[in-house]
Amino acid sequence: MSGILSGMRVVEAAAFVAAPLGGMTLAQMGADVIRIDALGGGLDYRRWPATEDNTSLFWCGLNKSKRSVALDLSSPQGREIAMALVCAPGEDAGLFLTNFPPRGWLDHDKLRARRAGLIQLTLMGDRHGGSAVDYTVNARVGVPYFTGEPGTEGAVNHVLPAWDLVTGQMVAVGLLAAERHRRLTGEGQHVKLALQDVGLAVMNHLGFLEEARRGQPRQRHGNELFGAFGRDFVTADGVRVMVVGLTLKQWRTLCEALDLQAGVDQLAARLGLDLDQEGNRFRARKELAALVGPRIAARSYADIEQAFNRLGVCWDRYQDIAQLVADDPECSPANPMFSTIEQPGVGTMLAAGLPLDFSARGRIPAAPAPRLGEHTEQVLHELLGMPQAEFGRLHDAGVVGQAR
Amino acid sequence: MSGILSGMRVVEAAAFVAAPLGGMTLAQMGADVIRIDALGGGLDYRRWPATEDNTSLFWCGLNKSKRSVALDLSSPQGREIAMALVCAPGEDAGLFLTNFPPRGWLDHDKLRARRAGLIQLTLMGDRHGGSAVDYTVNARVGVPYFTGEPGTEGAVNHVLPAWDLVTGQMVAVGLLAAERHRRLTGEGQHVKLALQDVGLAVMNHLGFLEEARRGQPRQRHGNELFGAFGRDFVTADGVRVMVVGLTLKQWRTLCEALDLQAGVDQLAARLGLDLDQEGNRFRARKELAALVGPRIAARSYADIEQAFNRLGVCWDRYQDIAQLVADDPECSPANPMFSTIEQPGVGTMLAAGLPLDFSARGRIPAAPAPRLGEHTEQVLHELLGMPQAEFGRLHDAGVVGQAR
Repeated sequence: MSGILSGMRVVEAAAFVAAPLGGMTLAQMGADVIRIDALGGGLDYRRWPATEDNTSLFWCGLNKSKRSVALDLSSPQGREIAMALVCAPGEDAGLFLTNFPPRGWLDHDKLRARRAGLIQLTLMGDRHGGSAVDYTVNARVGVPYFTGEPGTEGAVNHVLPAWDLVTGQMVAVGLLAAERHRRLTGEGQHVKLALQDVGLAVMNHLGFLEEARRGQPRQRHGNELFGAFGRDFVTADGVRVMVVGLTLKQWRTLCEALDLQAGVDQLAARLGLDLDQEGNRFRARKELAALVGPRIAARSYADIEQAFNRLGVCWDRYQDIAQLVADDPECSPANPMFSTIEQPGVGTMLAAGLPLDFSARGRIPAAPAPRLGEHTEQVLHELLGMPQAEFGRLHDAGVVGQAR
Repeated sequence: MSGILSGMRVVEAAAFVAAPLGGMTLAQMGADVIRIDALGGGLDYRRWPATEDNTSLFWCGLNKSKRSVALDLSSPQGREIAMALVCAPGEDAGLFLTNFPPRGWLDHDKLRARRAGLIQLTLMGDRHGGSAVDYTVNARVGVPYFTGEPGTEGAVNHVLPAWDLVTGQMVAVGLLAAERHRRLTGEGQHVKLALQDVGLAVMNHLGFLEEARRGQPRQRHGNELFGAFGRDFVTADGVRVMVVGLTLKQWRTLCEALDLQAGVDQLAARLGLDLDQEGNRFRARKELAALVGPRIAARSYADIEQAFNRLGVCWDRYQDIAQLVADDPECSPANPMFSTIEQPGVGTMLAAGLPLDFSARGRIPAAPAPRLGEHTEQVLHELLGMPQAEFGRLHDAGVVGQAR
């Protein structure tokens, strides 16, 4: 199946979330993404969640649709092969993605000396090359202190590695932009990106920094959407739903679905607030919740679902992951983004392809993550023209690994 | 200043976080991103946080470095101008980004009929065109039920619109990939992306879905990093720090900094666990915390900071946003990603450019968001060759708006 990036080749030496996700994003658009793995697997090869026999669901999830070349990177010969792969010829190749320190065989100047026009993207923790991960960045930028219920103490860490995920997509952006530049000018380059900078930039983009500088640092607002009306409520039969009245249209459909307009008008008059203004809905959020809550609590989930969907209310039910997996048709092959794969070490499992749907190419079904070293011989032959006998010799010497 | 995407032109008709962030990402790489705005501003033009006189810090933050054309989109003439802008000639133009329903003047077939090779990216809530926002997606995919302290009830919404942020970068990925395809084949297309699918895909990529299918849905673990050792502790003088021992190297530097090795060895023997294995550090997290906690609680922050930095521990301090803004040099113009801008309606403020640092071009300093309609006359002249007299006539008729 031919993807939108067919023909592009990327070499990846990376671990954890952001850099592998960036590489996988390109792979799921049809780029040939070749991982260079250490013989026994890299830093995240056993990262949890894992199966009972210690196959990492995390690693498999973030390396779908890639090829794997396993090398003894502690040996000069292994490192020499790694450099040769990064610098292998191919008009649409010479793209290198890493989140390891750009030293030794990953040194950009050395690699560029072997291949003009090389594009390398190096992901770092902080911009000085220091160590930082999603959890430390999140602590530093202040999010844990405004998550959770008002009046509570302490920090609430997020559990979704949001900064990693954003950075992962930005890795793909950086490589695509640099590749465009090279196509137009012939010029390669070293693109650098720091996870910590992504966190700081977003805090600026969303207005958090300027708000704080003006003496109004964001406070905890529990489950309430800031600056408009939105929060969770529970139906008569105990189903939690999130409802949102951010735009005026959303707000009016919510009022209509719950027959709230008369009560809201009275409230507006009493408070002297124009509740068609989203900010005033936030100011009156407690009073509005006192109107909305009982209306939802009085009706069954089935009834609420029907009323909300009929009018196009912006809402959804809360699900736990078990429900999501068991019951939600959007989280199944009924959604064309998903397909069922055979993942070595895991078995038959649901796998997501790329959320982007390109009309010029159609969707590429998700493909499994490689076994460690599954493509070593194939790739060394394709990219370096290595004869079978030479591969056998290196294999016997423990320089290269081949699955099975 | 010439950016890595210099020459590219994108027209954007969009609101809220994801689509404008995607457009801004391209703008901060040097693309000419032209917003089409309604005369009085669109759905998010007053979105909080805002200044005292109701200038949206949110809108300004997400529209930096763009141009703004204000049109009466309720009039046929205004919509005709909008379509003409989307379809205006230019080899490196014909890119259109929207998160509005692709109907009326945003209908892809109509637009493509006017301009061969048009690339349109339409961001949707769900893939059926239904309404969904970050908060509803988050509820549906299950994250609020595994955020927060073990044993607690209810849902904990995130406050960082993580799904929007990831999707925003994916918008940029989609446009860059489609532009590459057009450059190679001449073919335009309609790229579609649903916020809900981004959430579902990530839940799959990180292993959450398969873990739940195997009967082990992720539980609440409070501030503990899942699958290894990492959590928050408080120093003798009350400073909260996040420490991470995910990789073996991180774990060993942490043990060294806190002189823990003897205690850890005893614990390993007592529990019969090899604590060099990250998963075992998670299994023994309570016992390890009982060793780590008192060591941190016994020392001042200054002492911990020095010890951790000397050894390269993976850690950071928790800050609230007020501290981040006031005290952190990384969140100031000392960090080359930041600069100081004059934002109309806001004043002098700190602004973040792109975290990506392209060696071939250098950083582009952040530029302010436009005033609504600031570039209407300029853009209509440049792209459509509109003479001044014609612009004046349309302005008098209220079809076009021009700032000041």
